[in-house]
Amino acid sequence: MTQHFSTRTAASQHREAQARPVDPVGPRRGLGVGELVLDGGFWGALQETNARATLRHCLDWMEQLGWLGNFDRVAEGATGGERPGWQFSDSEVYKLLEALAWEHGRTGDPAVEALLNKVVDRVAAAQDEDGYLNTCFGHAGQAGRYTDLSTGHELYCTGHLLQAAVARVRTLGHAVGRAAGEDRLVEVARRAADHVCREFGADGRGSDGRDGICGHPEIELGLAELGRALGEPRYTEQARLFVERRGHGTLAPIALLSPAYFQDDVPVRDADVWRGHAVRALYLAAGAVDVAVDTHDDDLRAAVERQWTRTVERRTYLTGGMGSRHQDEGFGDDWELPPDRAYCETCAGVASVMVSWRLLLATGEVRYADLIERTLYNVVATSPRADGRAFFYANPLQQREPGADVRPDAVNPRAEGGVRAPWFDVSCCPTNVARTLASWQTYAAFVEEAPGGSSGGGSSDGGVVVSLAQYAAGDLRLSVDARDPGQAGGELALRVTTEYPHDGRIRVEVTAVPERPVTLRLRVPHWADGATLTGPDGSTAAVGPGWADAGTAQATLVLGDVVTLDLPVAPRLTWPDPRVDAVRGTVAVERGPLVLALESADLPDGVLLDQVRLDPAVAPCAQGDGAVVRARAAALPGAGAGTPPFASESAADADDGGPALLDLPLVPYHRWAERGPSTMRVFIPTTPSEETR
Amino acid sequence: MTQHFSTRTAASQHREAQARPVDPVGPRRGLGVGELVLDGGFWGALQETNARATLRHCLDWMEQLGWLGNFDRVAEGATGGERPGWQFSDSEVYKLLEALAWEHGRTGDPAVEALLNKVVDRVAAAQDEDGYLNTCFGHAGQAGRYTDLSTGHELYCTGHLLQAAVARVRTLGHAVGRAAGEDRLVEVARRAADHVCREFGADGRGSDGRDGICGHPEIELGLAELGRALGEPRYTEQARLFVERRGHGTLAPIALLSPAYFQDDVPVRDADVWRGHAVRALYLAAGAVDVAVDTHDDDLRAAVERQWTRTVERRTYLTGGMGSRHQDEGFGDDWELPPDRAYCETCAGVASVMVSWRLLLATGEVRYADLIERTLYNVVATSPRADGRAFFYANPLQQREPGADVRPDAVNPRAEGGVRAPWFDVSCCPTNVARTLASWQTYAAFVEEAPGGSSGGGSSDGGVVVSLAQYAAGDLRLSVDARDPGQAGGELALRVTTEYPHDGRIRVEVTAVPERPVTLRLRVPHWADGATLTGPDGSTAAVGPGWADAGTAQATLVLGDVVTLDLPVAPRLTWPDPRVDAVRGTVAVERGPLVLALESADLPDGVLLDQVRLDPAVAPCAQGDGAVVRARAAALPGAGAGTPPFASESAADADDGGPALLDLPLVPYHRWAERGPSTMRVFIPTTPSEETR
Repeated sequence: MTQHFSTRTAASQHREAQARPVDPVGPRRGLGVGELVLDGGFWGALQETNARATLRHCLDWMEQLGWLGNFDRVAEGATGGERPGWQFSDSEVYKLLEALAWEHGRTGDPAVEALLNKVVDRVAAAQDEDGYLNTCFGHAGQAGRYTDLSTGHELYCTGHLLQAAVARVRTLGHAVGRAAGEDRLVEVARRAADHVCREFGADGRGSDGRDGICGHPEIELGLAELGRALGEPRYTEQARLFVERRGHGTLAPIALLSPAYFQDDVPVRDADVWRGHAVRALYLAAGAVDVAVDTHDDDLRAAVERQWTRTVERRTYLTGGMGSRHQDEGFGDDWELPPDRAYCETCAGVASVMVSWRLLLATGEVRYADLIERTLYNVVATSPRADGRAFFYANPLQQREPGADVRPDAVNPRAEGGVRAPWFDVSCCPTNVARTLASWQTYAAFVEEAPGGSSGGGSSDGGVVVSLAQYAAGDLRLSVDARDPGQAGGELALRVTTEYPHDGRIRVEVTAVPERPVTLRLRVPHWADGATLTGPDGSTAAVGPGWADAGTAQATLVLGDVVTLDLPVAPRLTWPDPRVDAVRGTVAVERGPLVLALESADLPDGVLLDQVRLDPAVAPCAQGDGAVVRARAAALPGAGAGTPPFASESAADADDGGPALLDLPLVPYHRWAERGPSTMRVFIPTTPSEETR
Repeated sequence: MTQHFSTRTAASQHREAQARPVDPVGPRRGLGVGELVLDGGFWGALQETNARATLRHCLDWMEQLGWLGNFDRVAEGATGGERPGWQFSDSEVYKLLEALAWEHGRTGDPAVEALLNKVVDRVAAAQDEDGYLNTCFGHAGQAGRYTDLSTGHELYCTGHLLQAAVARVRTLGHAVGRAAGEDRLVEVARRAADHVCREFGADGRGSDGRDGICGHPEIELGLAELGRALGEPRYTEQARLFVERRGHGTLAPIALLSPAYFQDDVPVRDADVWRGHAVRALYLAAGAVDVAVDTHDDDLRAAVERQWTRTVERRTYLTGGMGSRHQDEGFGDDWELPPDRAYCETCAGVASVMVSWRLLLATGEVRYADLIERTLYNVVATSPRADGRAFFYANPLQQREPGADVRPDAVNPRAEGGVRAPWFDVSCCPTNVARTLASWQTYAAFVEEAPGGSSGGGSSDGGVVVSLAQYAAGDLRLSVDARDPGQAGGELALRVTTEYPHDGRIRVEVTAVPERPVTLRLRVPHWADGATLTGPDGSTAAVGPGWADAGTAQATLVLGDVVTLDLPVAPRLTWPDPRVDAVRGTVAVERGPLVLALESADLPDGVLLDQVRLDPAVAPCAQGDGAVVRARAAALPGAGAGTPPFASESAADADDGGPALLDLPLVPYHRWAERGPSTMRVFIPTTPSEETR
C-alpha cells in the first residue's frame, strides 16, 4: 500500500500521516491515519473489504434511493413534493464522505479522492448563501429551517458534515487557522459552522434569537473537532453552549417518548448514568468530553466518567453492546440486559468507541481501551457481512427464530434480527461502520510525554511513552515531537507481528528509534489472567491486567529490541452478575477478546437450541477461532396443556433421563449468521448443578 | 340493589335481565346482565367501585381534556386548528357509553341513564347526514374521510360505537329487528353501520369504491354483534368482508413497523399464532369468531382456536397477560416472555377475555374459562387502584426501579411502570376496565340444551345444562327457555355463597327450579389438584380439572339442593417452562387463581429485592390473600470492575456465607403498588439447588 504515497511530497505525507479523528488539547495523542499500516490480520482484512466493497456499496445505494439526488434538487430549486429518505438522510452522505476522506488519507488513492470530490461538488451546490445546508428543510415546499428541532435532525446532519470536513482538512495537511481554504468540503463545513454559530450563538442569536438544541446530539462533537482542526475557538464555545443547554426540558416532547429519550431530562454535568436513545446519549457524551477537555472543565469530564462507569457496569452487554430496548433504541434500567431483545445498535457501538477513546486520551486509564477492544470485536466487527455488502443494525445476543432471507435489492427494516441486510430504511449503521474501519488504526495506540521528565527544558528528558492499546499486525511509524524548537524529534518505528486474536502472542520489534527516549507500554486486557511479557533482555515475567511496561520502567527502546506479550486466549467461561436476571442459570464462553456463540447450524440433527445444557464442569477447548463445549440435550416438556407455559412441577425434573453427551462447536459471535438464517445463543443454560459435581 | 328494578314492568325487566355483550347463534348463551346479582366479594366490590367512582372519573377526564368537546365542535361546524386528543379519542367516549349502558342495565339507576343520554345527545349531534361520525376526519380543517386507514382509527371508533349501541339496545329490551328506533344511541349506531356498509360493502362500494380495512380491528366485532342485536345480516356480512380482506398487505405501511403489527401479513384463516400489536390481534380474533359462528365457517373458527392454543402455550404470561414487547405493544416470539419488559396491556387482557368467552360459547371447552379466570384476576383486576380512580396501562411482572409518584392532575405516559395513573395520553385502558366490570357477571356462567335430549319435541326432554364458569357470591336467577312454544320454561335460581378466592369453598343452593330439568356443572380449574365436590346427597368425591357434574350425570336439580365445591387454594409453587429463558432459575407462587408478588415494601431493612433467593424446599404458607415464603438474602458482587457485569467466576460462589433465613410475605399481584412506589417480582430466584436438599 505504501506506493500510494509516492506522488506526494515528504512534508505533506508527514502531515497527512498524523491526521486523526480526535485531537484534543491535552497530554495524549492518538495515532495518525498513516502512522500504522496494517498487514492483513483481523482488522487489516476488514479495512480492505471496507475499501474494496463497502464504500462503493454505500454510495450506490444512496444514489439509487435518491439521497444524493436530494442535494441536486435543492441546487436546482426543484424541492417540494415527495422527498426520498428520512429527514436525516443527508448525514449518511456526510458519514460516507468522512469514510472516503479517511480512506484517501490512509492510502492516497486518487480514485478515492476523485469520488469524494464528485460527491462534495453536489453537496456544496446545495448550500444556501448564508451557509445553511440541509435538503429537508428551508426550501420551496419544505418546512422552515429549525422549525422542528426535536425531530428534524438539521444540526445532527451538520455535525456529521463537520466531522467529514475534519477528516478532509487533516488528511489534506492544511495549515491550521483561518487561512485554510483550498478544499471545497472544508469551506462548505466552515460556512455551515459559522451559520450555526450565528443562529444558535450566545450573543448574535440570529434574527429568530434561537437558543435551542438538536433532538439528536452530534453537532457538539462536530463543532468541537472542527474548532480544533481549524483553530477556531468560536466553534468550541458553540459546542459548549449546546452541551450546557441540554437537560432543561428545552425540546418539544415527542409523542409517547420521555425527555430522557434525547437526554433533555437532566443536564450532562448532573447525570449519573446514560439513559434514553443510546446513540444520542453516546454522541452527546463524546461531545461533552471534547468540550470538557478543551475548556479544562474537570467537573464536566468527571460527570461523563461517572456515567461511563455506571453504564458499563450495569447497562452494557458482554459484547460491549449498549441499548437494551427496541422501543426507543435505548438504554434500560440497571441490570436490564435481555439477550433476545438486546438492541445493541451498531451505531451505538461506534459511538461507545468514540466516547471511550476520548476518555482514554483524557485519562490514560486502561479500562477505556478494554471496552474499546470488546466493542470493536463484538459489535463493530459483527455488523458487516464477510463481503462488506450487508450489515447488522441491531446485534442481539440471542436469536429465537431464524431470520428471514433478505432480498439483496430491498431496503430492509432496521432491526429485524438474524440476517445482515444490504441497506436499511434508516441506514445509519453501514456508513458508521465504513468511517470507523477506514480510520481503525488511529485507535491502536497513543503517545504522551513521559511523566518523569522535569518541567524545565534541560537535558533530563524523560522522553515519550507509547502505549499500544489495540493489537494488529502491521508497521507503526510515528513522529516523536521535539521537546524544544530546533531540537530533532525523530521517528519511532515498530513492527508488530501477531495472529491476534486467533493467537495470544504479540511480538513487537523496534525498527527505528528517534533521538528522544521512548518507553513502550502494552495493554494487558482485564480478562488476561496469566499473561506474560518477555522483555528486550529475554526475561519473561507475569504481567497483570493494565499497562505493562516493556522492560524496566523508563527503559529506552533501542533499535532491534523485541518485546513479546503472551495473552491467554484459551476459551473461558464467563458468568453473569446475579442481578442480570435475563441470563440467570446460563454461562457464556469467551476466547481472548471474542465473545463466542452457539448457532443452530452446528447442532446435530434432532437437537434443538432450546435443549442444549452446557456442562460448566468440563473446560471448553479451543477450535479454530472458536471453541468446543461439552453439553447435554435436555428433554423438553411435551405437548401443551392449553395454559400458559408455567407448571406446578419444575421442568428440571424432566431432565432425569441422562441424555447423550454432545460436543458442540461455538463460533465467534462476530461471524454468526454468515451461513444463512439460524437461531443463536451467546448465553447457554447450564446443566443442573448437581450434575457438575 | 334489587330495588332499582321496582319502577319497571316485569316484561321489560325480563328482557333487560337477559341483555349480554355476546349473543351468538349457537347452542350456548351467557348470563344476562341482570341474571346474576353479585353480593359483595371480590368482583362485587370491584363492580361497586366501578359504578361509584370510575364511570364518573372517566367522564370528568374526557370532559376536561376536550375529548367530549370534540363532538360539540363538529356539531357547531367549529373544527379545524388544534384538536384535543389522539385520532382515536372518540372510542373512549363510546367505551364509556357502553359501560354506562351495562351499568344502567345492571341497576336500572335512572341517574346513570340520564348521564348516558346527555353524552349520547352530544355524540348524535356530531353525526353527518349520511351517517358518518368521527370528530377527527372529514370536517373543515381536517383530513378527508378514510384517507388514512392505516392509522386513522375511524372504523375502529365506529366499532366501539356499535358495541355501545349493542349494550343499549339489549338493556332497553328493544324488539329485535328493523323497527327498533326508540333510542337515540341505537339509531346513531344503525346509521353509522349502514354508512360503513355503503362505503366498504361488496357491491355498493360508495363513490370511492373503497374496499379497505381499518388499521385497528374492532369494527368487525361491533358490526357482528350489532347485526345480532338488530337482526341485520348485512352487518354480519360486512364484518365477514373485513375479516377476509385482512392479511393481504392491504394497509399502507407504518414507518418502522411491519404489516404483522396490524395483522395484515397473513389472512386470519391461515395464521397459526397471534402476532403484532396484541389488542389489534385479539379484537380481530374476537370478530373472526363472531363471523365464524354466525356463518358456520368451521375452518375460520378452527384457525382462531389454533392461534389461541399456540399463543396461550407459548406467548402468554402467568398472569394471562399478553404482549411481550413495548416497541409495538405486541406479541414476541414463542417463549419470549420477559417479566420486566412485559407489556401485558390492560386492554389486551380485556380483549383476551372477549376472545376466550366467544370460544367458550362456541365450544364449551373448559380451557377458555380457565384463561378467562386467570386474566380477570391478574390483569383486569390489577389495573384499577383500590379507589377506582387510577389505572395500570401496562402490567409487567417485575419492577426494577420504583415508579415515580404520579401527579393526580396530570395526563401520564401510558406504559411507565410502577404507579397507577389517573389518566393517560393514550387512555384506552380505564374505559375498557369500566365496561368489563360493569358487565362482569355476564361471563360467570352459560346455559345450553342438555346433549342427551332426543332431537324431537317429545317428553324425553334432557333439559338444560347450566355451567358455572366463574365464582362469585351472589344470586343467579335465569330464565330457562321453553323447549316448545306454549310450554313453560320457568326460572332457575341459585344462591352462591363463597369467599373465593380467599377461600376455596363454593356453596351453591338451589332456590328455585324451572319446569324443565336442569343439570348443574361447576368448573374445576386446571390448577386445582385435590378438589372435591359434595353433592346434594351429602356424598363427597374427588373431582379433576374440567367440568364437574353436580351430583350424578343428568341428575335434575330440585329445590333446596346444595352442592359444595372445595378448591385447594393453599399457596403453590409454579415453575416456568425451561424455554421461557427470561425467568430461568426462578419460581412463582400462586394461590388459587391469584398470582402472588414480592414487593420491596415487605422486605426487612437492609435486604434488597435483588438479594432474595426463595427456598423451594420449604412449602409456602397462606397468609391473608397472599403467602409467606422461606428465603435467604444472597450476597451480591461488590463494587464494579469498570467492565460489563459478567465475570470469570460464577456469582453463585459468592453465596457461601449462609445468610440468615427470611420469612417474606407475598401479596396478590393485582394489589401490588397500592402502598406507594416499590420494586416487585413475581418470579423469584431460587436458592442453589444443593441448599434445598
